[in-house]
Amino acid sequence: MLNTINLADKFNLFPEPWHPKIVGELNGSYVKLAKLKGEFVWHQHANEDELFLVIKGTLVIKLRDQQLTIHEGEFVIIPRGVEHLPVAEEEVQVLLLEPKSTRNTGNVQNERTVEAEWI
Amino acid sequence: MLNTINLADKFNLFPEPWHPKIVGELNGSYVKLAKLKGEFVWHQHANEDELFLVIKGTLVIKLRDQQLTIHEGEFVIIPRGVEHLPVAEEEVQVLLLEPKSTRNTGNVQNERTVEAEWI
Repeated sequence: MLNTINLADKFNLFPEPWHPKIVGELNGSYVKLAKLKGEFVWHQHANEDELFLVIKGTLVIKLRDQQLTIHEGEFVIIPRGVEHLPVAEEEVQVLLLEPKSTRNTGNVQNERTVEAEWI
Repeated sequence: MLNTINLADKFNLFPEPWHPKIVGELNGSYVKLAKLKGEFVWHQHANEDELFLVIKGTLVIKLRDQQLTIHEGEFVIIPRGVEHLPVAEEEVQVLLLEPKSTRNTGNVQNERTVEAEWI
């Protein structure tokens, strides 16, 4: 049996920011949901393009040479190799799409690095 | 320069149902937007999993052994090889994610087959 996934219901299952949760899998990629609040760490993904679709709130993604502001109902794709720094002044809910191999902190491994789990 | 894509703005660019438009590309897949209205054709994609995220309206996807009803803010992933029939009683706006090789009518080629174009 196939299931329909309700984004709001899934976001209600976890409070913690910067801990992406897996809610779907297709073609070697995961669909993940994350809550973001505050500033993350500069990083890049050497082999993975990453999509951020904002479901709630306003997300800023700083790049080395520009700054993106992504509102509800908007998305951006960060190509592989592009350094980026997500910043959320207020809590933001995002849907992420990225290959299964993607680490949340990309080329950086530190205390912000977490393993995504299914919810 | 990277761009932010606004879904509502993109949906305003085209009226015709069943003609998916490409709005993004990542990891060998396209992000597409489509308006659906009425009944499509039974088909399956032999090698491609397909995500349907409903942005507006209510989409029904009939499978051979079940029926999915997908509301705004919900998504479903149709695995490769699974026959499906999208049905939209009223107009539905969906975001699709699928490999670049995906044909809209899958294993079927008929008058409903179209080539997606960038908008």
